[in-house]
Amino acid sequence: MKVLIGRPGSVSGLVLRLGQCAFAATAIGVMVSAYGFSSFTAFCYLIASMGLQVLWSFGLACLDIYGLTRRRDLQNPILVSLFVVGDWVTAALSLAAACSSAGIVVLYSKDLHFCKDPRLHLHCDKFQISVIFAFLTWALVAVSYHVMFWILLSSV
Amino acid sequence: MKVLIGRPGSVSGLVLRLGQCAFAATAIGVMVSAYGFSSFTAFCYLIASMGLQVLWSFGLACLDIYGLTRRRDLQNPILVSLFVVGDWVTAALSLAAACSSAGIVVLYSKDLHFCKDPRLHLHCDKFQISVIFAFLTWALVAVSYHVMFWILLSSV
Repeated sequence: MKVLIGRPGSVSGLVLRLGQCAFAATAIGVMVSAYGFSSFTAFCYLIASMGLQVLWSFGLACLDIYGLTRRRDLQNPILVSLFVVGDWVTAALSLAAACSSAGIVVLYSKDLHFCKDPRLHLHCDKFQISVIFAFLTWALVAVSYHVMFWILLSSV
Repeated sequence: MKVLIGRPGSVSGLVLRLGQCAFAATAIGVMVSAYGFSSFTAFCYLIASMGLQVLWSFGLACLDIYGLTRRRDLQNPILVSLFVVGDWVTAALSLAAACSSAGIVVLYSKDLHFCKDPRLHLHCDKFQISVIFAFLTWALVAVSYHVMFWILLSSV
């Protein structure tokens, strides 16, 4: 199996997983603090998707810590296959959540100019920040996915 | 280099590229025929993204035909690297376009119930069909991308 940056059971892998957790948790926190987010299906979906991402990344971060402290090799093909599938699913869901929310943010701020209307009390800035963090989460998961896919293919 | 289904210069590769072209062109055609699509940035972005996809997939389909008729091997590392980068970029753009448009379709049909309002003259059914074809395009490009990535890594 290849020795790559971000591989499971390494410090770089742990940093990547903790980064995913932190960005996803920030996206959830900022979105939840925005008044009226629950009226939008896409924003609720973003919270659900980022919640799944936090659980997945936190689980793998714990596994990385276990691998680092017990000096266990986590790069066996079955485990890496599981990581590839999980990372692919969560990466696709994260990008879908970020883009669907971004579509609505652009619609409200650019197409309909609802964000400038003080009567609507829309927290557009918070929606935007949450979407940016969702995109950052996706970028980190995409890196993890490609590393795992590379490791898996190198063992085929 | 690996001999995989969907590899460049093969019949399966050509079918995959023509499928991408057909789905992307259908997504554009249905969206353009929907009245008022140009008021939405996300729908315009979907057309731009699907347009780029048509150009990219058509170019690669022509290359596949060239490879098939002249019996040339198109699986050299430099060419496959180019295909990997191109497929990754177009796949990410296609998913982003499909999801941002889907976010707006769900907002209008489910959250705001604008689609049921006859005074707004919104062609929600056409928006939905276009988004479905954009998702199908993305699925085919994702298959192409994984095949190319696999071929590239098998040569490293």
